[in-house]
Amino acid sequence: MQPFECLALRFDGRTLWVLDQTLLPQEEAWVDGSSPEAMIDLIQRLAVRGAPLIGVAAACSLACAALSGSTPSELEQACTALAAARPTAVNLMWAMDRMRSRINEGKEALVVEAEAIVHQDKALCEAMAEHGASLIQHGEGLVTHCNTGGLATAGIGTALGAIRRAWEQGKALHVFVDETRPLLQGGRLTAWELKRLGIPCTLITDSMAALILREGRATRVLVGADRIARNGDFANKVGTYGLAVQARHHGAAFHTVAPFSTVDLQCPSGAAIPIEDRHPAEVRGYQDRLWAPDIPVFNPSFDVTPANLLTSLVLDQGVFSAEALAGDALARSLNQGAHPQ
Amino acid sequence: MQPFECLALRFDGRTLWVLDQTLLPQEEAWVDGSSPEAMIDLIQRLAVRGAPLIGVAAACSLACAALSGSTPSELEQACTALAAARPTAVNLMWAMDRMRSRINEGKEALVVEAEAIVHQDKALCEAMAEHGASLIQHGEGLVTHCNTGGLATAGIGTALGAIRRAWEQGKALHVFVDETRPLLQGGRLTAWELKRLGIPCTLITDSMAALILREGRATRVLVGADRIARNGDFANKVGTYGLAVQARHHGAAFHTVAPFSTVDLQCPSGAAIPIEDRHPAEVRGYQDRLWAPDIPVFNPSFDVTPANLLTSLVLDQGVFSAEALAGDALARSLNQGAHPQ
Repeated sequence: MQPFECLALRFDGRTLWVLDQTLLPQEEAWVDGSSPEAMIDLIQRLAVRGAPLIGVAAACSLACAALSGSTPSELEQACTALAAARPTAVNLMWAMDRMRSRINEGKEALVVEAEAIVHQDKALCEAMAEHGASLIQHGEGLVTHCNTGGLATAGIGTALGAIRRAWEQGKALHVFVDETRPLLQGGRLTAWELKRLGIPCTLITDSMAALILREGRATRVLVGADRIARNGDFANKVGTYGLAVQARHHGAAFHTVAPFSTVDLQCPSGAAIPIEDRHPAEVRGYQDRLWAPDIPVFNPSFDVTPANLLTSLVLDQGVFSAEALAGDALARSLNQGAHPQ
Repeated sequence: MQPFECLALRFDGRTLWVLDQTLLPQEEAWVDGSSPEAMIDLIQRLAVRGAPLIGVAAACSLACAALSGSTPSELEQACTALAAARPTAVNLMWAMDRMRSRINEGKEALVVEAEAIVHQDKALCEAMAEHGASLIQHGEGLVTHCNTGGLATAGIGTALGAIRRAWEQGKALHVFVDETRPLLQGGRLTAWELKRLGIPCTLITDSMAALILREGRATRVLVGADRIARNGDFANKVGTYGLAVQARHHGAAFHTVAPFSTVDLQCPSGAAIPIEDRHPAEVRGYQDRLWAPDIPVFNPSFDVTPANLLTSLVLDQGVFSAEALAGDALARSLNQGAHPQ
C-alpha cells in the first residue's frame, strides 16, 4: 500500500496510524491501527469515528492484515468482525463488502481495493463540497452538529467540507457549532478544525441552537449522516432530529451531506435503521469525570430524522429535494451508479 | 431570627449556612452566607441558585447583617448590591424591595420580614404543587429542565414540587431529566433530588428530549421561570425555549410553574427581560476541565419563551391558560393580590 496521509489517518509504508480523536483537542496522539483487532477497538471507543472514515480505516487495516500474512479465512473473519464494530454507520459495511469480494484475489488486490476506497472517499468529499457550497449564501450564519470534516473522512469532509468550500470561494460565513453532547464531537473536533482553517465560529451548547435560529443569526443547518434509508430518512448523531425540528419551526434550511455509500437502499425507511445504545457513563459525565454517578440514563448514539424535515439531501451525485426523495429518486439515481473514482 | 432548615439553606440561630450547589452531588458542603458580601459571591457563582431561593437567601443574609449591627445606610447599600447580584431573576429584586421597606423600623422588623419571606416561599410551593399536580396524569412521562425542586426554593419546589406532589398522590410517573448544559443543574441537582425522593427518572442530554417526546415516552413538560413578563412570556434557564418548541411540535403539554413573585408586571413582554451573559468557560468545559480551550462562545444564562408556546402557567394562585395570559389575566390577578402567607 502506498504511503498516504489525511487528517486522522496515516500509512507510512509499514504501519497504519490513527489519530486518537478521544484525546483531541488537548493531545494529538497517533496510535497503531494496523491490525483489524486494534482497529475494532479504536472504532468502538470512537478513537476513529465519522461514518466515511471508519469505512476507510477498516479497509486499510484489512489491507495491512493481508500484507502481514493473514490467511483468506482470517481475513474473512476480520471483515465480519470489522463490519460489526458499529451497527448504524453503513459505510463500514459497504467498505467491508468491497474488501471481502477481493479476498480470494490475494493481498495485492486487497491493497488496490483499500487504496481505491481512500482515493474515492477524497473524490466524493470534493463532489459533495461543490454541491453543498452552491447552497450556502454569502454572509450567512450556519449551524452544524457533531463533526463532519477532515476528521470524519479521508478528504475535506461532508457537511463541514461544504462549509469549507463555500468559505474558500470567498463567501463570508459564521458557523455556530453545537458542542454535541454526550461526547462533544462539535466542541472538541469541529471547533478544532474550524480554528485550524480560520473560519469564524462560535461554540454553543446544543440547547442554544434554537435561539440562534430564532434570532436569525443562522438561517441554514448542515449535518452529516451515518445511514440514509431509501426514502431519505437518515440516522445521524443524536441531537440531529431535534435540530431539524428547530430548523423547520424557524424557517431555516436544513441539509444532510453524505456520500452515496451512506445510502442503504435495502433499508426502506428510518424505522428500519438499527440505533446503537452506548454506555450510560457517557451521559453521566465526560471522560473520567462523573457528575451523576448512578442515575439511569438513555443514551442512543444516533437519532433518525424523517426526510420530510429536509430541505435537501446533498450526495456526491447532486442535490435531492424532499420531494425527489419521496419520489424514490435515491433508488433511481444510485442504481445508475455513476460516482467519482 | 428563629432557626430554620430547608434543603439548601439553614440558620442555626447565629450563622446562615448555604449548601454549595456547585459541588453537588459529589460533595455536600455548607458555607457561611451570613454577610451580604458573602451571599453576593455565592449567588454570582451559583453556589446558591434557583430564582425563589436566591430571594429567600438574600433576605436572610440581610437580616443577619442587621443582627450583626450593620447601620441602616449599610443595609441600604447591601440591599442594592444584593438585588444586582443577578440581573434576570426578579424574585431577588422583589425580596430586596420588601426588606428595604423595613430598614428604618430596625433590626427586629428585618428579622420578621425575612422569616415571613421564608415561610411564604414554603407556602407558595405548596400552593403551586397542588395546582401543578392536578395537571399531571397517572402513568405519564414528564420532561423537566434545570432544577426547580427543594434546592431552588425554601419549600418543595416549583415544577419539581408539582411532580413530587403528583407522585405523593400515588400517580405513576417517569421523569426525563434534561442534564441542562452548560452547568448541568439537571444532571447534578434534579437527578440527586429525584433519587432522594425515589421518583423514577432517566437522565438525558438536552438534545434527546426531542426523541423522548416524539416516541411518546413523555407527553408533558414542566419547567420553572426566572422572570415572567406581564403577557406571560418568561425567561428560564437556557434550553427552555427549544424545549417549548419541541413540545409544540410533538403535541405535548408545556407548563411553567412559578410563584407570583416571579411575575414582573412592569415588564410588558419577553423582549424587555434582561438576559445575563455568563463566562465562556462554562461552555468550553465543566468545572476545571476545558475541552475547547480558546473558541469563541455564546453563553446566555437564560432564554425567553413566548407565552403562545405555553399550555398553561401555574402560579400559586392557580392555572392560567395561554388565552388568559393574552387577555392580561396576570395583571388582573396580581393586582388583586391574594397569596398564601
